[in-house]
Amino acid sequence: MKASSLAIWSIKCPRKLLQAATIPNKLLMGPGPSNMTSEINQSLSQPLLGHLHREFLEVMDDVKDGIKYAFQTENPLTFAVSGSGHAGMECALLNLLEPGEKLLVVENGIWGARAADLGKRLNFQVKKVSVPLGQAITLDAFEKAVEDYHPDVVFVCHGESSTGVCQPLEGLGNICRQRNSLFLVDTVASLGATPFAADYFQVDCVYSASQKVLNAPPGLAPISFSPRAQYHHTGLISLNYSLRTALAQLALEGISTSVDRHYKNVHILYSCLEQLGLELYVNRKEWRLPCLTTVTVPERYVAADVVSFMMNKGIEIGGGLGGTAGKVWRIGTYGRNSSVECIERTVHCLQEALEACAGNRK
Amino acid sequence: MKASSLAIWSIKCPRKLLQAATIPNKLLMGPGPSNMTSEINQSLSQPLLGHLHREFLEVMDDVKDGIKYAFQTENPLTFAVSGSGHAGMECALLNLLEPGEKLLVVENGIWGARAADLGKRLNFQVKKVSVPLGQAITLDAFEKAVEDYHPDVVFVCHGESSTGVCQPLEGLGNICRQRNSLFLVDTVASLGATPFAADYFQVDCVYSASQKVLNAPPGLAPISFSPRAQYHHTGLISLNYSLRTALAQLALEGISTSVDRHYKNVHILYSCLEQLGLELYVNRKEWRLPCLTTVTVPERYVAADVVSFMMNKGIEIGGGLGGTAGKVWRIGTYGRNSSVECIERTVHCLQEALEACAGNRK
Repeated sequence: MKASSLAIWSIKCPRKLLQAATIPNKLLMGPGPSNMTSEINQSLSQPLLGHLHREFLEVMDDVKDGIKYAFQTENPLTFAVSGSGHAGMECALLNLLEPGEKLLVVENGIWGARAADLGKRLNFQVKKVSVPLGQAITLDAFEKAVEDYHPDVVFVCHGESSTGVCQPLEGLGNICRQRNSLFLVDTVASLGATPFAADYFQVDCVYSASQKVLNAPPGLAPISFSPRAQYHHTGLISLNYSLRTALAQLALEGISTSVDRHYKNVHILYSCLEQLGLELYVNRKEWRLPCLTTVTVPERYVAADVVSFMMNKGIEIGGGLGGTAGKVWRIGTYGRNSSVECIERTVHCLQEALEACAGNRK
Repeated sequence: MKASSLAIWSIKCPRKLLQAATIPNKLLMGPGPSNMTSEINQSLSQPLLGHLHREFLEVMDDVKDGIKYAFQTENPLTFAVSGSGHAGMECALLNLLEPGEKLLVVENGIWGARAADLGKRLNFQVKKVSVPLGQAITLDAFEKAVEDYHPDVVFVCHGESSTGVCQPLEGLGNICRQRNSLFLVDTVASLGATPFAADYFQVDCVYSASQKVLNAPPGLAPISFSPRAQYHHTGLISLNYSLRTALAQLALEGISTSVDRHYKNVHILYSCLEQLGLELYVNRKEWRLPCLTTVTVPERYVAADVVSFMMNKGIEIGGGLGGTAGKVWRIGTYGRNSSVECIERTVHCLQEALEACAGNRK
C-alpha cells in the first residue's frame, strides 16, 4: 500500500507553518502568565520520559514535596493537575461535592462568580454571599453566611485577580470546621506572594496555577486535598520539569522571603503610581494583593488605549475583568517580575502611555 | 509586615528539590509518549507570551492550520484542547451530546470501554457493540448496530492502542450520515501514521494527542468539530510552540509520506519479530496499526520481565492494557521513532531480553 497514492488527501500543507515562528521577548506584567526564569525555561528542554518511568516518578515526588512546601501542608494527597488554574477549580469542586450538595461561594469578583457558575453546572445547590467589588468579606459576615446555609463546602478566592483583593483567611477555616463545612481556597493569583499556609489556616482543599508567582509556563495546577479521586492519563512530562524547577527556585529563596519581596516591591509600585497621580482600586491596604495591583482608570482615559500603547512597547499590563472591565488596569508583579527593574520599566512605559492617551475620553 | 516573622510557616523546604533533576535519554518505543525531535524540544524554550498576544494568536492560527492539515479537514472549529488525549475524548463527548441522548460505542479494546464508561458518567444512554480483542468491526455489523439503535453519536477508536488494531473507516461515516448520527473518531494512536482524512471519511468529530506520532510532549489534544462550545482559560503556551513545530515537521515531510514511512518501517519490524520467532497479536494484516505493534507473549515468558529487562537497557516497550494485559507486548513506532535505526536497536534489545528471560513461566 502506498498512502500517497490514495484519493483521500485533499487538504494542502499550510505553507506558513513551515516558516519558524518568531516569538519576541516581552515583559509580562499583566495578570498572568508571568515570564519564565531561565532555569525554568531550560528545564523544559529535558528529554521526554514515559510518565510511569522511575526518573519521572522521582520528578513527580519532588514536585509533590515542593507543592507541599508552597502550600505549607502535610496533606498526603498533594499533586499537580494537568491543566490551567481553572482545571484546579474543576478538580476541586468535582471531588469535594456530589450533585445536590450545598456549596457556599464567597463572591468578591469574577473567580467566585465562576466557581458558583461551575457549581450550578455540576448540579450543586449553590448559594453566593457577595461583597462589593474591591472589598473582602469580614469574619462576621462569613460566619453568618456559613451559619445560615450549613454548606458542605465553602469556596473562597484568596487572590481575586479581577479586583486585586487579597481575602484575609485568618479565622475562616475555624468557622468552617466548627460548622462541619469543607474550606476550599483558590490561590491561583496569590500563592508565593502572600502568606498562605493550608494547615495553619485549616484549609481542606487548595489549588493554584503554575504561570503566576511560580513563573512556570501555564499547564499545571498544584492542588492539595483529602483522597477522594483517582487519576489516569498521560502526565504533562515537560511541564512537570519546569514546575519542579519553579518550585526549587521558590524553595531556594524561601517562601517567606519570596512573600516579603513581593510586599516590598509592590510598595515601590504604589509609590510610583501615586507619583503619576493614579489611584489604587482597592482602598483598604490589608486587602491588596502584593502580586496583582489594580489601578483605577482616570475619567479621561480609555483603559484599552493605554494597554495597547504599552503592548506596542513590549510591555503587557492587563485591563479589568468581569465587573472591573474598563474600570481598572491590572499590573502583575509575579515571581521574578516582582523586581525594582521590572517595576521601573513598567511605570516608565505607563507614564509615556498616560501622556500619549490623555483625553481620549472626555 | 514581615512575612518571615509570621507563625504560619511550619513546613520545611524539601532539600532534594534543590538538586537539579537528572533526566536520562531513553528511547521511547512503547505505546506513548514517543521521543521529541530536537526541533520540538528547542521550540519549548521559546519565551512565554500572554495567550491573547498577537504573536501567540498567530502560533495558534498556525497550529489550527496544521491540525486541519493533519486531520485533512476544512472544518473551521479545529484547535488543540489543553490536556491529554483523554481530555480530547471528554471535550468531544461533552460537546456532542446532552444527558439522555444516545451514544453507540464500538468497543474493540480499552478506549471504546473508556468512552462508554465516560458516556455513562455523563448520563448519556450508552450502548456498546463489542468485537473480540484483536479484531475490527465489519461494515455489516456496524450498519446493523447503527440501524438498530438510532444513536445520536457513534464512537469509533481508529487506532486501538491496547490491541494494535487499526479500525478501517471506509464507509462508516456514510452509514452514520444516512442514519442522522454524528460520527466521532479517536485517532490518538493513529494520526499521521495511517491514512485518515476527516472530510473524506465523513467524520463529524475527531481528536488526537500530541505525544504519539507527532513527537510533541503530552499536553495537547488536537480536535476538530462543528461549533458548539466556547472556551476560556490560559492556553498552554509552550506546548503550543512544540505542537506547532511538530505539525510543521509533519507538513514538511508530507502527511502521506509520513504514513508511507510508518508502513514501510513497521514491515521491517514485522520481519525482525518473525525472525525472533514471535507472533503478531493482530492476525489480519489490514487491521494492524503501523505505529503500534502488538506482539503475543509466548507461553514461557512473563511479559513484565521482558519489559523490565529492556527498560534497564534504556529502551521502553509497553505491556498490554485492559484485556491484553499480560498477553502482549506493545511496540510503538511513532513519528521519528519509526526509523530503521530505532527498530533495530529495539529488536536487538528485545532479542537479548528474550534470551535472558526465557522460561520464567513454564
